Amino acid sequence: MTVTVPQGFRAAGVAAGLKTGGATDVALVVNDGPATAVAGVFTANRVKAAPVLWSEQVVHGGAVRAVVLNSGGANACTGPAGFQDTHATAEHVAAALTATGTVPELGAGEVAVCSTGLIGERLPMPALLAGVDTAVRELSRDGGAPAAEAIMTTDTRPKTTVVPGAGWTVGGMAKGAGMLAPALATMLCVLTTDAVATPDELDAALREACRVTFDRIDSDGCMSTNDTVLLLASGASGVTPAPGELASAVTAACQDLARQLIADAEGATKEIAVEVVGAASEDDAVEVGRTVARNNLVKTALFGNDPNWGRILAAVGTTAAAFEPDNLDVAVNGVWVCRGGAAAEDRAKVDLTGRDVTVRIDLHAGAAEATIWTTDLSHAYVHENSAYSS
Amino acid sequence: MTVTVPQGFRAAGVAAGLKTGGATDVALVVNDGPATAVAGVFTANRVKAAPVLWSEQVVHGGAVRAVVLNSGGANACTGPAGFQDTHATAEHVAAALTATGTVPELGAGEVAVCSTGLIGERLPMPALLAGVDTAVRELSRDGGAPAAEAIMTTDTRPKTTVVPGAGWTVGGMAKGAGMLAPALATMLCVLTTDAVATPDELDAALREACRVTFDRIDSDGCMSTNDTVLLLASGASGVTPAPGELASAVTAACQDLARQLIADAEGATKEIAVEVVGAASEDDAVEVGRTVARNNLVKTALFGNDPNWGRILAAVGTTAAAFEPDNLDVAVNGVWVCRGGAAAEDRAKVDLTGRDVTVRIDLHAGAAEATIWTTDLSHAYVHENSAYSS
Repeated sequence: MTVTVPQGFRAAGVAAGLKTGGATDVALVVNDGPATAVAGVFTANRVKAAPVLWSEQVVHGGAVRAVVLNSGGANACTGPAGFQDTHATAEHVAAALTATGTVPELGAGEVAVCSTGLIGERLPMPALLAGVDTAVRELSRDGGAPAAEAIMTTDTRPKTTVVPGAGWTVGGMAKGAGMLAPALATMLCVLTTDAVATPDELDAALREACRVTFDRIDSDGCMSTNDTVLLLASGASGVTPAPGELASAVTAACQDLARQLIADAEGATKEIAVEVVGAASEDDAVEVGRTVARNNLVKTALFGNDPNWGRILAAVGTTAAAFEPDNLDVAVNGVWVCRGGAAAEDRAKVDLTGRDVTVRIDLHAGAAEATIWTTDLSHAYVHENSAYSS
Repeated sequence: MTVTVPQGFRAAGVAAGLKTGGATDVALVVNDGPATAVAGVFTANRVKAAPVLWSEQVVHGGAVRAVVLNSGGANACTGPAGFQDTHATAEHVAAALTATGTVPELGAGEVAVCSTGLIGERLPMPALLAGVDTAVRELSRDGGAPAAEAIMTTDTRPKTTVVPGAGWTVGGMAKGAGMLAPALATMLCVLTTDAVATPDELDAALREACRVTFDRIDSDGCMSTNDTVLLLASGASGVTPAPGELASAVTAACQDLARQLIADAEGATKEIAVEVVGAASEDDAVEVGRTVARNNLVKTALFGNDPNWGRILAAVGTTAAAFEPDNLDVAVNGVWVCRGGAAAEDRAKVDLTGRDVTVRIDLHAGAAEATIWTTDLSHAYVHENSAYSS
């Protein structure tokens, strides 16, 4: 159900032959209104895929009737021809939807496009466009689940969420298993709501939500060319939530999806929360958290069930955050193995046999804090990313 | 021979029992003069090991008679007690050397200390000091090779170099197999020369050398707490080289050692040169090179013999360097797989079966260039760093 739980949305997920093996690979989400308000957040990578360049413009217009997503190819680093492919896809979606008579006549400028998969190769356009036709025919109020499955790449399971409001709902789906790093993770995410909201209100809610969720997961420090998070509002509930309520629900939805992304990150055997407290500023806390979360020596140590706090301190020491080296405390799974920058409790007390790991770092420099979610660096990560050309 | 090739130096490497297994773990290098000029470059990590804090002060004095180095323990994150251990070691070296009568009476302030190994644990001082006594007894003009062996940790072989000048020589030894990142690599390095040079001249030569050698290798993006590069000048040749000659020789020595460090990086199966050309500035070239060199998805792709230029572009896109995304060219081992930000020559032409890999990135934004040396990310890296608590 996912993106189709809120009123006013239909979706579909179909197999167009972009992936080898016959798995579904084209998803379509349609907003039946009455409103077609939209907001979007895109990768900060300067090398942006064609669908990102396209969808940024579409979202800037403030109205999106449909989102078409494909796995099996990122359409990134494909030059002007790749951009034409994205444009042609949007045109095709607009024409096919208009032809159904179920939506008002629309143009390509109301169709957002998302792609994910291998970088640097053109999409097989005949197959993709035929898939779009199939998806249009299969659109339904039950199409959220197949849509969420169709956008998977190395994901082992679909990621969906539903967050209820007072008379309105937020639904969502996401994909993304590697390249999870700010900002954003390598991911596509479509959020829907039947709340009544303007594009500006959606934009404010979505940016705040991403800042504290997707921008705080970091599986491997690598930033994608295709990251896209879209929030569509149909207004079908007739309810106008207070801006704070909307932001809270969108944040909750993003948080839920972000945790699912980390839980399914490529080759991960640990889900690691790097909690930084006592920071002089939230920016400092985020910088320290990210630096520790990205450190390969910390990540391999945790893969090996080694509470190697020395490597954590060495990582903290590379940041510009406010702290004194001899006033750093570090706990691993609740055991304060380091206090005052030196050994404290016996590291043998730390139990790292479980999947969940908490690294808590107290900078003793203020009252700000932040948590970054990451994963360990395992043999499976190396295997998956050396064998899979993505 | 290594550090004892230049005239005026003796060295020793002995087993003090700091390492399990009986390998040598204490090295001593003594400058018999007539001069005792010194320069040093230390880790930029704000979490600095006790021996770094100590040796920074010693080098600031401009005169160093002896350098004592131990493997088997980093003496980092050991608090005030760890600093006292370093001080006591320097005192012990000074007293033991003075007692031999082979050098002028000296104090701890003329003894630099370097340590490497596990972070966060105190050194076994009785064993270390007994090792110092043995090393003092074994000092000889042939002691360079055993000294280079005694500083190894996960290194599989010692790293040494000799660069001849016109009537003078530079010798050197280094260790360091993981945490190789600017600035510096996780490494200890002692360079010696019998040239006549002031501390300021040595400092200028050493900083220029490090900037283009040790600061341009990056095996895993991780910066150590203990990095130390020392340059000692005995003046025993009586020859005063031109400043440019000295800098050239020191740079050549550092370059030789830096390449040996990358060649022996933990778990590496590839030695990768990331050559960035057409940059608007050298800083831009270095930023792009480092970013690509640190990218786990690039490193795993190259481990898998996959010329995945899309991941390279995605990494370049995260930098602030001057470039246009649709004007980027990338060659892997000489095959221009990407031109104008899109696919060009057939990637199947790229032969990645050898150990040496060259990634060349043309930013088309200027005339500056830089090369960063790195390694791939392999199963062996994960294994070594999850199993070895360092």
